[in-house]
Amino acid sequence: MDDRWREGETGALRRPGRPPLLVRVVRGPQPIGEEGVIDLGAEIDQPVGRSVAWSGTDCVLLRPNLSDLLSTVRRGPQIVTPKDAGPLLFLAGIGPGHRVAEAGSGSGALTIVLAYAVGPSGHVTSFDRRAEFLAAARANVTRAGLADRVTFRERDVAADGIDVGELASIVLDLPEPWEVLATAKRALVPGGSVATYTPTYNQLERTVRSLRSHGFEDVRAVELLERALHVGDGGTRPEFDMLGHTGFLAGGRKVA
Amino acid sequence: MDDRWREGETGALRRPGRPPLLVRVVRGPQPIGEEGVIDLGAEIDQPVGRSVAWSGTDCVLLRPNLSDLLSTVRRGPQIVTPKDAGPLLFLAGIGPGHRVAEAGSGSGALTIVLAYAVGPSGHVTSFDRRAEFLAAARANVTRAGLADRVTFRERDVAADGIDVGELASIVLDLPEPWEVLATAKRALVPGGSVATYTPTYNQLERTVRSLRSHGFEDVRAVELLERALHVGDGGTRPEFDMLGHTGFLAGGRKVA
Amino acid sequence: MDDRWREGETGALRRPGRPPLLVRVVRGPQPIGEEGVIDLGAEIDQPVGRSVAWSGTDCVLLRPNLSDLLSTVRRGPQIVTPKDAGPLLFLAGIGPGHRVAEAGSGSGALTIVLAYAVGPSGHVTSFDRRAEFLAAARANVTRAGLADRVTFRERDVAADGIDVGELASIVLDLPEPWEVLATAKRALVPGGSVATYTPTYNQLERTVRSLRSHGFEDVRAVELLERALHVGDGGTRPEFDMLGHTGFLAGGRKVA
Amino acid sequence: MDDRWREGETGALRRPGRPPLLVRVVRGPQPIGEEGVIDLGAEIDQPVGRSVAWSGTDCVLLRPNLSDLLSTVRRGPQIVTPKDAGPLLFLAGIGPGHRVAEAGSGSGALTIVLAYAVGPSGHVTSFDRRAEFLAAARANVTRAGLADRVTFRERDVAADGIDVGELASIVLDLPEPWEVLATAKRALVPGGSVATYTPTYNQLERTVRSLRSHGFEDVRAVELLERALHVGDGGTRPEFDMLGHTGFLAGGRKVA
Repeated sequence: MDDRWREGETGALRRPGRPPLLVRVVRGPQPIGEEGVIDLGAEIDQPVGRSVAWSGTDCVLLRPNLSDLLSTVRRGPQIVTPKDAGPLLFLAGIGPGHRVAEAGSGSGALTIVLAYAVGPSGHVTSFDRRAEFLAAARANVTRAGLADRVTFRERDVAADGIDVGELASIVLDLPEPWEVLATAKRALVPGGSVATYTPTYNQLERTVRSLRSHGFEDVRAVELLERALHVGDGGTRPEFDMLGHTGFLAGGRKVA
Repeated sequence: MDDRWREGETGALRRPGRPPLLVRVVRGPQPIGEEGVIDLGAEIDQPVGRSVAWSGTDCVLLRPNLSDLLSTVRRGPQIVTPKDAGPLLFLAGIGPGHRVAEAGSGSGALTIVLAYAVGPSGHVTSFDRRAEFLAAARANVTRAGLADRVTFRERDVAADGIDVGELASIVLDLPEPWEVLATAKRALVPGGSVATYTPTYNQLERTVRSLRSHGFEDVRAVELLERALHVGDGGTRPEFDMLGHTGFLAGGRKVA
Repeated sequence: MDDRWREGETGALRRPGRPPLLVRVVRGPQPIGEEGVIDLGAEIDQPVGRSVAWSGTDCVLLRPNLSDLLSTVRRGPQIVTPKDAGPLLFLAGIGPGHRVAEAGSGSGALTIVLAYAVGPSGHVTSFDRRAEFLAAARANVTRAGLADRVTFRERDVAADGIDVGELASIVLDLPEPWEVLATAKRALVPGGSVATYTPTYNQLERTVRSLRSHGFEDVRAVELLERALHVGDGGTRPEFDMLGHTGFLAGGRKVA
Repeated sequence: MDDRWREGETGALRRPGRPPLLVRVVRGPQPIGEEGVIDLGAEIDQPVGRSVAWSGTDCVLLRPNLSDLLSTVRRGPQIVTPKDAGPLLFLAGIGPGHRVAEAGSGSGALTIVLAYAVGPSGHVTSFDRRAEFLAAARANVTRAGLADRVTFRERDVAADGIDVGELASIVLDLPEPWEVLATAKRALVPGGSVATYTPTYNQLERTVRSLRSHGFEDVRAVELLERALHVGDGGTRPEFDMLGHTGFLAGGRKVA
């Protein structure tokens, strides 16, 4: 990575004690936050990591990492969490340069994870049958500066099928993923994988049985529990707060 | 990804009921497995995913995913597991195109994860002060076809420092990561992150306190528990077998 | 158990949609709840489980189970939870008829658990060096109808020792249990056990090393995670809310 | 507890580095272990906790705690574990002096836990429809010295109902607990509770729905994860080995 800002790049404006804000390094005033405006024209060609005054506080302008890109996406209860995103990428076999698809788009949080992981040479097609979700996801992905890696498609893949092919991976963040497994298998390259994310045991059970009956191999199902550790003056202990459940992950691979 | 084999690519030879073997798609006989030989010259320019007869069984030649690349690395008890690798990448803020470093090289398993995640446009420098570990790690990374993304360096970074700079991320898989945090901070770009992986709470506590005293921000510590689910004729339940602990993850970000 | 109320027994007044209230089955008005009054004289010699009108609602008067007895104790963050109480009894080898001790008394919640478990033929001595905690614990134990099984003692056992002997079990719910292990060992019968409950790894480590150095055998340390399951119209899943940590349990047995 | 052995009591012969053996403190030789014999007549009226030579080693004769009583019961995969026994007692509201029932008897391990918890003034009726399980459970309970608190009954309670009444608690360790809930409810006193233990979510779901439809209140379902902690020279960490699942617990209370 270049250590200076190029015009048009996405930056993360890091504020003391508050979540970062995503901005463009462009000339002229741009809207930022709830009702602010900022002009980052002076940062173009300057080193990454300089202090920037904004709204009366000393901020720092950094290249966003994945955590920054996700910090402005509003999270609903069903959103794939960072603890699940890594294992989901692993189950789905996703890496740089891959052509992947997801259904549905949701809030765009998982879309951002996928677009980040496939990198500039990869591509994500994100399907959702609900126009309003597509719009929200597109806005979030655009704010994250990843819009050129993602194609959003309004389509009910359970009813109408996945109409792109040669995919390395497909991620199904849908209530009834079993309805999509047949079309998903056709859309995958040999060796490609599908991964699903569902909250209930009932959905997981039906998904796993359906993965097997569709001939997927290496079928696996897991859940992940993440527990934070607290290091304080009184010593070290697990945090009292913990998310007891998010979703069950399942996955399988197309071989033949 | 191209759907046909190019000469020199790494493939995964998938055998029925056994772990896959990594091979090169090259002309002429190459050693494979414990004592076998295979010639994959006929696959060059052919579609990925064809059946290949070997050792009396019907195999399939696939593009390896990360799981395939890791399957031939012997795992010791201290090796970063897939469940931890994703969160470690997240904590360390690693993505395609990044320049990253790790210490130590270990078996090369984590090196493979990092090299996979940064993609062909990224680079990994892997430090270890023990020549025999470097040799083993290099062999594993080479077998995975990722050697051109990795530089192995015999160096005691705790004593002699990290002598590459402008790194986006540094992963410390060492018993005493606190000894490396000062040099790690200097080697990171602004916004870059360090992540550590240690088995005991004592190491975790000292690491977290040291991250704070070195001025890292967003200091976090977590552990992950992965539980597999069993879907059988009698119903669905968590698996009885579970790994109760691997390592604690900690991370922090260089801002100023 | 007799199926009719005897005069003076403790009952649980079960209210629709609210926690139960503990009451005495006695003649004449008694205070109940925040500002109410009830007269249960008519229930004497009547069967357990009848409807009782109170405060405009239909209540049921039941024999309290352990959950009822604990429901009116205010819980602080350090209080032993039901999930830990059972394993703590198991580690400490507590059963009906046992003479046991605890330090400190805390809110009296654990005292109630111990008094319940040893039954009417057992006895609990509860030590605390803070008079105000003793008073609160005594009030809670009295409300639970278990005061005749418990002796409260204002005493700093770390400084002044445990001055009762022939104990089957000792439970230490103190920040520095290692300071009490020498006197605890002397107070135990051969085969008796001590159990501790501490929130941090640091305390646990020091406790376990101290148990060993004092010659306790069968030294064990565990933590318990309890996760509730949600069975709803949409299926069954683990609850999203979960307590990530309460305390670490440790225990050892005096043999020689 | 008396600090001297009374004739006929059950003792635990603690051997160095091996599980304890349960014995009777009686005059004359008795069989012990795989093929040994011991005469403990000399211990009668002597203090608990003396050294006893047996089989060439120095043993100690102690009053058995619950862990000793369970140590000689062979454990199958479906047996209620100590971590689950405490919460099961809590869910089922079991305490000293209670009349309780269980179905089925299994190996007798849970029967021992129940008989221990209700004490000498309580009683357990243990139902099983399989004569060979009853015989094994009876042998284990007898070896634990608790036979006088337990009545074993060969009976298929799903088909023929529970024919004892006025029970404080019923524990169902059966594959299809929902078949027993109607008769269980009739057999409980008002305020009594039923608790179940089943390995799959499918069983749990059906049990919980059935508890609700039979009018049980306070219906709850939980699972417990127990993780041991390792305190060694290198520091403290969770143990690598862990049991990932045993069974789901569910429970409900009869109010009306």
